[in-house]
Amino acid sequence: MGEFELIDRFFLRRGRPPSAQVPLGVGDDCALLAPSPGHELAVSCDMLLEGRHFLSTVDPERLGHKALAVNLSDLAACGARPLAFTLALALPAADEPWLAAFARGLFALADAHGCELAGGDTTRGPLAICITVFGEVPRGQALLRSGARAGDDLWASGTLGDARLALEVFRGKVSLPPSLFEAARERLERPTPRVALGQALRGVASAAIDVSDGLLGDLGHVLRRSGAGATLDTSATLELLAARRHAAGGEGLPDARLQLDCVLAGGDDYELVFTAPPDRRAAVQAAAAASATPVSRIGRIEAEPGLRLLDADGRALPGQYRSWDHFA
Amino acid sequence: MGEFELIDRFFLRRGRPPSAQVPLGVGDDCALLAPSPGHELAVSCDMLLEGRHFLSTVDPERLGHKALAVNLSDLAACGARPLAFTLALALPAADEPWLAAFARGLFALADAHGCELAGGDTTRGPLAICITVFGEVPRGQALLRSGARAGDDLWASGTLGDARLALEVFRGKVSLPPSLFEAARERLERPTPRVALGQALRGVASAAIDVSDGLLGDLGHVLRRSGAGATLDTSATLELLAARRHAAGGEGLPDARLQLDCVLAGGDDYELVFTAPPDRRAAVQAAAAASATPVSRIGRIEAEPGLRLLDADGRALPGQYRSWDHFA
Repeated sequence: MGEFELIDRFFLRRGRPPSAQVPLGVGDDCALLAPSPGHELAVSCDMLLEGRHFLSTVDPERLGHKALAVNLSDLAACGARPLAFTLALALPAADEPWLAAFARGLFALADAHGCELAGGDTTRGPLAICITVFGEVPRGQALLRSGARAGDDLWASGTLGDARLALEVFRGKVSLPPSLFEAARERLERPTPRVALGQALRGVASAAIDVSDGLLGDLGHVLRRSGAGATLDTSATLELLAARRHAAGGEGLPDARLQLDCVLAGGDDYELVFTAPPDRRAAVQAAAAASATPVSRIGRIEAEPGLRLLDADGRALPGQYRSWDHFA
Repeated sequence: MGEFELIDRFFLRRGRPPSAQVPLGVGDDCALLAPSPGHELAVSCDMLLEGRHFLSTVDPERLGHKALAVNLSDLAACGARPLAFTLALALPAADEPWLAAFARGLFALADAHGCELAGGDTTRGPLAICITVFGEVPRGQALLRSGARAGDDLWASGTLGDARLALEVFRGKVSLPPSLFEAARERLERPTPRVALGQALRGVASAAIDVSDGLLGDLGHVLRRSGAGATLDTSATLELLAARRHAAGGEGLPDARLQLDCVLAGGDDYELVFTAPPDRRAAVQAAAAASATPVSRIGRIEAEPGLRLLDADGRALPGQYRSWDHFA
């Protein structure tokens, strides 16, 4: 199967008329996008490599989902509405069942977000997936990393740390009861980009980022670009580990230190961490309700630079938690 | 050197204020692009892998040039003005001299075309370069592959076949005198995207494509999408091999058959092949002059499907030339 047949069979979706947002899709030198008047185009790009970003044994349908999800998560973090994406795919061989499953996972998520495949490139090589995603946001309304101000609340969406917990199981460093493992694995392999929440937070949040490298590291980007510091309530963040809720009485969970490692520095969460003034708490909760996405308050932005981690009793945690690359 | 330091040192260009077309560049979850009102955004994406698209010994400065050039060539083929690009880079190691040279070649070409790096991703892995490029074109004016009509002239820009000739020298199948080899190698390693010509041809050309896979194959895409056929004057196309002009009396050139193979099916040319009605010949020549790009008439579009290759005496060439994947 050559390149053109491969594209034709798995990635051309016949019978779909050109849309207003993508007047020309796959098949010419370029695709044409038509963002709405008065909008800016938000663009992000991620490359996933076998062995580094996913295991060779991953279900290709889940991989198709995740490859797009991590990109949609970047659109979510700036409050953009998804429009389209390009896909560059390097494949060691044209494995038809693999391609069919990959395309199924990819397009299921794309369709759920009205995000169209607009073009791409396929080539033979070590398995690599590079997606560039395009969204639109009303001019001047994008959520940036730089807008956090002293006094703002610090919020996180959904759950944190479970993806890393699953990875540690795959690595043989932790064992979990099957039901806990399956739930954690779902978070690792089928993350949920918070696209609706991101859009609902426009005009409400002062800054936002998506958690891909780990809470502390990604929060650090917000603090640096905002010229601010923060205090993080680690007991509140620890409650964001979904496995704790699934485990009756904590049974089968790893020790508390590893749980906290996963939550603070696990990565691969694709949740939003965002800030908003305290007088916007009702608006934040309304955005969360409108997008059916749970949110939790986990700390506060402060003028003093640096990130301070407090335990349940309000005491500072020891220094080793301060670094985002705790696992490095 | 970590990912962030690498981006910071080689790909962040400090002191450059946000532009009107890229109000937010590298450093947030997304970049923001602001295409001009009344324009569509043209998007294309190419992935280059070591060993498949370039040799491991290639000069990294030339590789930086070429990685962007092949993408700009797609913008040229639809008549778009370059705005910005994203770069995803997988690197086996953070080799500083390599990165500095790669960035130098990349940004020299980007700056020549006013095309800004808007975002990207870096990761460790087998050397792979994935660029997605964005341009703008007035709504409805993009040059498409589908617009060729019976009676149209068939044109090519610049020169064809020399990139492949150089590749055959690298492969040890051909030898060339040093001066011819250097000229051909320049075409392979530093192709010239015909960006100004593409824009000048808006409203003049009826269809266009850039030659990346080889003249016959890429022309085939135009014919299929236009529902038309063509006759190609192979003696005119043979004259487009620049090596023939450099070689006094043909000295040092490979045999005529290999020359024709390179011109018709060589690939990696990044010239434009386009069509226009015969009554627009003066307009085509004016576009060529305005963009300082030579163009040559190489055939004619016909209603009868298929591609007919004629020799200098107007006789049909034997069948083996009819296939675009002659080298496959």
